[in-house]
Amino acid sequence: MNNSFQEIGNVILSCNNILLYPHLNMDGDAMGSSAALCRALRNAGKNCYILIEDKVADNLAFLDEGYCTADAGIIGEVELSICIDCGDDTRFPARAEAFHSSKLTVCIDHHRTTKDFCDYNYVDPGAAATGQLIYHLIKTMGLQIDQKIGEALFAAITTDTGNFQYSNTTEETHRIVAELYSYGIDANRVSIEIYENNRIQRLKITSRILATLQTVSDGRCAICYVTQDMLDETGALMEETEGVVQQLRGISGVEVAVFLKEKDKNTTKVSMRSKSCVDVAEIAASLGGGGHIRAAGATIEKPVLESLEIIKNKIIESLE
Amino acid sequence: MNNSFQEIGNVILSCNNILLYPHLNMDGDAMGSSAALCRALRNAGKNCYILIEDKVADNLAFLDEGYCTADAGIIGEVELSICIDCGDDTRFPARAEAFHSSKLTVCIDHHRTTKDFCDYNYVDPGAAATGQLIYHLIKTMGLQIDQKIGEALFAAITTDTGNFQYSNTTEETHRIVAELYSYGIDANRVSIEIYENNRIQRLKITSRILATLQTVSDGRCAICYVTQDMLDETGALMEETEGVVQQLRGISGVEVAVFLKEKDKNTTKVSMRSKSCVDVAEIAASLGGGGHIRAAGATIEKPVLESLEIIKNKIIESLE
Repeated sequence: MNNSFQEIGNVILSCNNILLYPHLNMDGDAMGSSAALCRALRNAGKNCYILIEDKVADNLAFLDEGYCTADAGIIGEVELSICIDCGDDTRFPARAEAFHSSKLTVCIDHHRTTKDFCDYNYVDPGAAATGQLIYHLIKTMGLQIDQKIGEALFAAITTDTGNFQYSNTTEETHRIVAELYSYGIDANRVSIEIYENNRIQRLKITSRILATLQTVSDGRCAICYVTQDMLDETGALMEETEGVVQQLRGISGVEVAVFLKEKDKNTTKVSMRSKSCVDVAEIAASLGGGGHIRAAGATIEKPVLESLEIIKNKIIESLE
Repeated sequence: MNNSFQEIGNVILSCNNILLYPHLNMDGDAMGSSAALCRALRNAGKNCYILIEDKVADNLAFLDEGYCTADAGIIGEVELSICIDCGDDTRFPARAEAFHSSKLTVCIDHHRTTKDFCDYNYVDPGAAATGQLIYHLIKTMGLQIDQKIGEALFAAITTDTGNFQYSNTTEETHRIVAELYSYGIDANRVSIEIYENNRIQRLKITSRILATLQTVSDGRCAICYVTQDMLDETGALMEETEGVVQQLRGISGVEVAVFLKEKDKNTTKVSMRSKSCVDVAEIAASLGGGGHIRAAGATIEKPVLESLEIIKNKIIESLE
């Protein structure tokens, strides 16, 4: 059961020493939401930091204007800890103890699986981004949105909505962003910081992966893979292969996109995406994995090329 | 000097037989704007078609609900011809005569270079998309926006704003799109139609092109090329190499992105993009080409690999 923004806003305004807890491996929504709230609370005279336990990604570092710290003791005794864009303490394992030692805790999140686990909670799975909830919270507290707060909220919202293309985007999403423009945001600069900051290794590994592209079932399934050797030869990181499976789904006529990652010589991770009619969660389940109808995965304890044959046969079967 | 939407709306409403003229090689804005206006006018009882002289691109064909025709005589005598998203008749050469033989002509456009060349004109370079102008025109005429009109306008606006990331995007852009949601648009479906409709050949040629990636000047310039042999081997079209130069610009630390296209054995086309400080128009001019500060091009009458060396030296010079 959610508390109201009014209740939560009153609690926040009654405290002075506040730490914000985004999830591990911060994405644009976690970082943008935390930066926006941190700046709004500092503007209101609060001692506020974003407590982190891992590095801020290079393409999001521009949002950190001295907000992030790994020092849980930086402001002395903490009156209030706010968990942002995550719904349980396993998402901030090294900070869980510090979080729970706070006098009061608040959770602001939009994930469907989040349960009320704090003293005060606002969880709205209908919100395209936690950034939208932070926007409402700042407004409810009567605090001003300045250009930098606006840009942090824009970063949060544009990344979590796939640049306003995903089905989570709503009328309200656009209404909020329209208002952010009135605070003088430079959305194009934010966009360049976030999206035009790829390592060259990402392009090199993408080239190598797409060279493995094959289709089955008359082009209704597209498959690619990456090996550890390909990563070594290009200097790329496994995380830089993200996005490939979406590119495969973007091929005309493709219903199922499959991407295989060689974890080690005898372990292959399989990611699957479907466009409109195939239940890839079912295929994943038959391999001991799981997921959603349109996005699922599994781990096969076989070399990558053997796994490729196994998954091809599964897909051919299910597309028949 | 612009006429008002009111004047133009009155002219349109006073006519019954109306043809719409988008530019050759229609993009999302031209097709989306034309489809939206065509449907709104048909809903108002008008005989209205979109007159075209080339094929509608596969990824935009879903917007054509029987609106497009190549038959200039399809509605008999034409009272009104409306030129959409283009500002002179060289953009519809095979239809120019038909256009000027109309009793009345109107131009609705957002290109900076457009001069008043019709009986009534509304040209606004400040509009992110012609779709925004069509939205205002439909509203001014007092016509209803239904789901399909809303989806056509969304297609127009999202494509011309780079999914709301380009600097042409404004507060008004988001306000209009927010309102379109209230007509029940399925923006995600539109997005999938437009962006997830690539031929597999596009991924294959992208892979081959990225394999030619090299950098100069300590990674501040990234260069790739495509040859006719690479196109032949992958079955891709030259137009399917679009987007590569933006990918190069998206590399961290890259200030200038260069893409070379082998036109024939002794002719190479060069496209350049810069991120923030280099004037690529100047480099293009030194090769007999031209363009804007951030996007320019030239043609070199040399084989592609010789042209590569020429352009590399030019860039190294200008980055020093």
